[in-house]
Amino acid sequence: MKKKLNVAMLGYQFMGRAHSNAWRQVGHFFDLPVEPVMKVVCGRNEQAVKDAAESLGWEEYSTDWRKVIERDDIDIIDICTPGEAHAEQAIAAAEAGKVVLCEKPLGNTLAEAEEMLAAVERNKVIHMICHNYRRVPAVTLAKQMIDEGSIGRIYHYRGTYLQDWIVDPMFPRVWRLEKSKTGSGALGDIASHSIDLARYLVGEITEVSGMLKTFVTERPLPGSDEMAPVDVDDAALSLMRFENGAIGSVEGSRMAPGRKNYNRFEINGSRGSIVFNLERMNELEVYIDEGPNSGFKDIYVTDPSHPYFAAWWPAGHIIGYEHTFIHTVYELLKAIDEERIPSPNFVDGLRNQRILDAIVRSAESRTWESI
Amino acid sequence: MKKKLNVAMLGYQFMGRAHSNAWRQVGHFFDLPVEPVMKVVCGRNEQAVKDAAESLGWEEYSTDWRKVIERDDIDIIDICTPGEAHAEQAIAAAEAGKVVLCEKPLGNTLAEAEEMLAAVERNKVIHMICHNYRRVPAVTLAKQMIDEGSIGRIYHYRGTYLQDWIVDPMFPRVWRLEKSKTGSGALGDIASHSIDLARYLVGEITEVSGMLKTFVTERPLPGSDEMAPVDVDDAALSLMRFENGAIGSVEGSRMAPGRKNYNRFEINGSRGSIVFNLERMNELEVYIDEGPNSGFKDIYVTDPSHPYFAAWWPAGHIIGYEHTFIHTVYELLKAIDEERIPSPNFVDGLRNQRILDAIVRSAESRTWESI
Amino acid sequence: MKKKLNVAMLGYQFMGRAHSNAWRQVGHFFDLPVEPVMKVVCGRNEQAVKDAAESLGWEEYSTDWRKVIERDDIDIIDICTPGEAHAEQAIAAAEAGKVVLCEKPLGNTLAEAEEMLAAVERNKVIHMICHNYRRVPAVTLAKQMIDEGSIGRIYHYRGTYLQDWIVDPMFPRVWRLEKSKTGSGALGDIASHSIDLARYLVGEITEVSGMLKTFVTERPLPGSDEMAPVDVDDAALSLMRFENGAIGSVEGSRMAPGRKNYNRFEINGSRGSIVFNLERMNELEVYIDEGPNSGFKDIYVTDPSHPYFAAWWPAGHIIGYEHTFIHTVYELLKAIDEERIPSPNFVDGLRNQRILDAIVRSAESRTWESI
Amino acid sequence: MKKKLNVAMLGYQFMGRAHSNAWRQVGHFFDLPVEPVMKVVCGRNEQAVKDAAESLGWEEYSTDWRKVIERDDIDIIDICTPGEAHAEQAIAAAEAGKVVLCEKPLGNTLAEAEEMLAAVERNKVIHMICHNYRRVPAVTLAKQMIDEGSIGRIYHYRGTYLQDWIVDPMFPRVWRLEKSKTGSGALGDIASHSIDLARYLVGEITEVSGMLKTFVTERPLPGSDEMAPVDVDDAALSLMRFENGAIGSVEGSRMAPGRKNYNRFEINGSRGSIVFNLERMNELEVYIDEGPNSGFKDIYVTDPSHPYFAAWWPAGHIIGYEHTFIHTVYELLKAIDEERIPSPNFVDGLRNQRILDAIVRSAESRTWESI
Repeated sequence: MKKKLNVAMLGYQFMGRAHSNAWRQVGHFFDLPVEPVMKVVCGRNEQAVKDAAESLGWEEYSTDWRKVIERDDIDIIDICTPGEAHAEQAIAAAEAGKVVLCEKPLGNTLAEAEEMLAAVERNKVIHMICHNYRRVPAVTLAKQMIDEGSIGRIYHYRGTYLQDWIVDPMFPRVWRLEKSKTGSGALGDIASHSIDLARYLVGEITEVSGMLKTFVTERPLPGSDEMAPVDVDDAALSLMRFENGAIGSVEGSRMAPGRKNYNRFEINGSRGSIVFNLERMNELEVYIDEGPNSGFKDIYVTDPSHPYFAAWWPAGHIIGYEHTFIHTVYELLKAIDEERIPSPNFVDGLRNQRILDAIVRSAESRTWESI
Repeated sequence: MKKKLNVAMLGYQFMGRAHSNAWRQVGHFFDLPVEPVMKVVCGRNEQAVKDAAESLGWEEYSTDWRKVIERDDIDIIDICTPGEAHAEQAIAAAEAGKVVLCEKPLGNTLAEAEEMLAAVERNKVIHMICHNYRRVPAVTLAKQMIDEGSIGRIYHYRGTYLQDWIVDPMFPRVWRLEKSKTGSGALGDIASHSIDLARYLVGEITEVSGMLKTFVTERPLPGSDEMAPVDVDDAALSLMRFENGAIGSVEGSRMAPGRKNYNRFEINGSRGSIVFNLERMNELEVYIDEGPNSGFKDIYVTDPSHPYFAAWWPAGHIIGYEHTFIHTVYELLKAIDEERIPSPNFVDGLRNQRILDAIVRSAESRTWESI
Repeated sequence: MKKKLNVAMLGYQFMGRAHSNAWRQVGHFFDLPVEPVMKVVCGRNEQAVKDAAESLGWEEYSTDWRKVIERDDIDIIDICTPGEAHAEQAIAAAEAGKVVLCEKPLGNTLAEAEEMLAAVERNKVIHMICHNYRRVPAVTLAKQMIDEGSIGRIYHYRGTYLQDWIVDPMFPRVWRLEKSKTGSGALGDIASHSIDLARYLVGEITEVSGMLKTFVTERPLPGSDEMAPVDVDDAALSLMRFENGAIGSVEGSRMAPGRKNYNRFEINGSRGSIVFNLERMNELEVYIDEGPNSGFKDIYVTDPSHPYFAAWWPAGHIIGYEHTFIHTVYELLKAIDEERIPSPNFVDGLRNQRILDAIVRSAESRTWESI
Repeated sequence: MKKKLNVAMLGYQFMGRAHSNAWRQVGHFFDLPVEPVMKVVCGRNEQAVKDAAESLGWEEYSTDWRKVIERDDIDIIDICTPGEAHAEQAIAAAEAGKVVLCEKPLGNTLAEAEEMLAAVERNKVIHMICHNYRRVPAVTLAKQMIDEGSIGRIYHYRGTYLQDWIVDPMFPRVWRLEKSKTGSGALGDIASHSIDLARYLVGEITEVSGMLKTFVTERPLPGSDEMAPVDVDDAALSLMRFENGAIGSVEGSRMAPGRKNYNRFEINGSRGSIVFNLERMNELEVYIDEGPNSGFKDIYVTDPSHPYFAAWWPAGHIIGYEHTFIHTVYELLKAIDEERIPSPNFVDGLRNQRILDAIVRSAESRTWESI
């Protein structure tokens, strides 16, 4: 019999739905060393959290996350709440000795993120941050290729994450457009993914020169005619230098009509190039210089030999967005079993946040800022 | 409380895994009128079916499908066995008054398919055939557009389904390459999907001119050096005429290197064209003639307003192969609740088989054959 | 000093413009063994042919092609007239001992084509047919790769040539829609290109099963309200078998909205696949099986090492439609210098026409027809 | 009779070949108001310039450009020499009262460019700079669409120009890698094109934050083993702000394997987006928000109604790189006839250079720099 681990999830919105699906599905496809039990989901609104428990498959629900964290029978705390709540919840979970899986961004501020990392390290608990795009099979394959030297020494990283959900100036001023709730706009929400992929695939970033822009400076409050100021960025751009001599750029914008989830990167090295676009997440474009008949090769990353794919369907039968969370949870469970810290973890979350912070500082100082 | 319906699934290989996932997941995403219960899975090998029950999420297992069909507490029989078993199982299920969901092709022969349809009609049971690609949101959207007249009168249907899993001449002579087990090769396995989509999107086919080809005429038996003859087609092609005046072609081949699951169709009408490719199943290319600045528009079919997508993730977060089965099961459950026969059903299965049969006849007679 | 060869061109419409450009440009880019002189252009309308001579760069003009063919100072006759005139003109040119370059299709009927080949062979003159798409660098590269065995034994040829210029049912009944002037519709005009590429890349075709379809059966006469019948095909499709065991299909249609010049082929062999589309004529997609990280490679065929490209611009600077004619003329001039028959020539033109003829016969007989 | 204008071209390398082709071809396709005569080509090496005159179609050649500029019978001076010679030649041509067409970049330094503009304005001569990519039909169409408000208020410009011709560290230190000859590396050579397109399509740039990078700091001298330092940038990146509130980025790199001539831009506005890539220069991708069934539309920009295309071939028959120069020369000749300054001209050249200069300054100062 496999050891059972009880999971409590805090929050049940978009991310909560994605995480719940991951917990439900992971054991049906992967051979797990330990068995997660979907014990309890927490939320503030009793009826809503009760409904969520039922539709998402949790045994119990609770409106008091603190009490849940204190329960002896809970092993893993999965934090899916808005960014403003992460620090308090993660620190409490760490103090209670729980494994902590936290949605990105780690904290709402750099200071929070530092406290969070300190808490998990002080309490020696296993911690993970959910940068799920590392777990797209094509991205993991890109990492393998780079590590094997397929594209040689890396010169360029070009990360662009574009969406269009707030292009309409009458789109309401929801919580994701409030700095106090979410920390920043496109920067923390999507450019942070491009930055995480940069660190994962290329290496540590040493300095940045960034800019932030809010095109639509006030929007109606939800369900109202009243206008309220927008205090987060619609778009964030930054140039960057890497420790290993590579240079790069990242951009996040929610004001790019037609781009739904265009999380694209291009990496150019001395021997080849790699391109990925989340909108076609089952493909990886790879160029290796082999003379005049070279060309960008569109690898359909669905083979059983590709990362994670042996668990799924025969070659050519694609997976989707939700599967990246399943792979993340799988990595966490393996790490728990092996009593090690999985990757990416709070260290990555903190480093990511330091880069976000440097971009904000640079946007203000109008100069390059070191991380 | 929702009414509960107990499901028994026969077979647990590739299709069984996909169907199990559908039964497990459907209630977590769709608001169902009735609640399916994954009661029992059937198979011949006791240990294997026991393991399958556990990993796929079935309450019980059985090695005797006949007894399961006789059980009063079973409401739905889901047939995922190889084609040779479909007729006997579906007829038994119909005789027992069960709802029958059957994988394609309906029977291994036209005669079997006719008996199967007769059985479900005679017993007045609800029946459905799993042509899951109708339930790709992009394909359902194509259907809606065509029905609304967006591309006008249809002139051309061009269906091509290419794979490459048996290109290697030393790939073994598995059951899918034995006529007695599977009826035909690429024709019934994949060209049949192109034919179903032709019927779904364009209309009834009246005559065909087909050809079959086996390039590799003998292969090693699995796990052996001994060669055995291949008696199914590696590739099947056919020209066709539709009742409504359109003309078309379909092709299925398992000998197309690089094509993993290239189920593509192009439809040209008097006002526009539509192109779909399963390898990029979250996209639909649509051309509507609007003057010189017209162009093929790549619609990312992931909006909540698109078919089935409101149940899933925000726009831009793609779904995969497995989701088509979830949509199929959802359609079945709605039909059961509304006491009607869903679509596609055994009538579609039989018509499909009549077309396959005419292609075989035409390949032999070397002339056009009527359906 | 290079030997000079005087060229006379018959016809000056679309093809005449393309050929004139080729004669004008070839010497500025290629190192020619002989020097063509654009001596005289022929046409029936004196003012129009005079204007054409000036704008296209011909020294003289004439309204009497017979007299021009008789001139001793003329070396090369380039036939760019509608199909109905080809036979008479080519035979006269051959009788006069001239080099003959003829636009496709060779004749308007199979009988004409046979007489034309007989005439050039009887008179031992150099002859060439302008199947210019063989001279797209990417297509020539495909030929080289196939000849080197890169994709192994060929299984499938899939040729599709789609246009949309007559989709509008009120598009007038121009000469290209009259059988007496042009022989056939989409079949001879565009499917014939797919057939030529099939022969060039795969090999000889032994039998066909074809169909022809006219969707819009009457159209207004040009500049008139009066309707006239359309007696050529809007679309032509055929299945085919090759001498070497490959199978294939070709399709030509002028009723495919959005497809401007979609001359696409896909070839699948035992080791790989090749795809070309004239709409992106500077690219060739090639798949070579190299294990799970294989993928269709998009070769940008613009390198100096690629066919014909050393004559043009640095890598990455594309060429267009007109350049295929320049390459054709270059091949003709080389052959003249080397006193040999270039490729493709009237033999190819005749074989092409035999295939077109078999498709017409098959469309009538509703059975397979041998070439 | 049309007025004849005698042209003298200085330089005959890559750009000289492209310009010569333009002068030769323009009158055969466009209805010109004046007739250019290819009178004389200038170069330092007598045999080489003599050969160039013959192969490129110039009546005469000269090794003394100063004398040619002084000739009364010369009307237009076309400067195709390396950047270091532009200033002296253009100023001399202006002083002599000639029309001046100058390859980009205008001068090798900002100071030179300012003197050049002053010279043409002081002498009231017609002047033009050859930013030929404005004359790609798809780019001109993009400009029309933006001017018509199709994509609304512009938010983002994203220009990327990638090549790979010096990726090999043993590629020699040619003149294009010497600052004294060429001014800068990727910045002036290719990023300058992205900047010109930014100004053409979006508007004036007010400030930049740039970086320059040389990855391979020494290379062998041509034909030698001796290494020499590289003092120009391999890659240049910059963030930018536009006068109209848009923000953007440009990047030029010659170190991107697989990118041959990847001159791509994406523009996002409040109502839509436009994407162009020179590697597929006959296409323009346009997204206009029309609700959930919107998508990026791939416009094949080859219709007679599209910019410049009426002069060429029927819809669907593409043009190439060289045609952009023909369109440039056509614009110059129209402007001469209408006695006005064409666009882009030395004002554009100077503004472009001011931006390049600000990027260099910013790369040094590590802060934003105003133009």
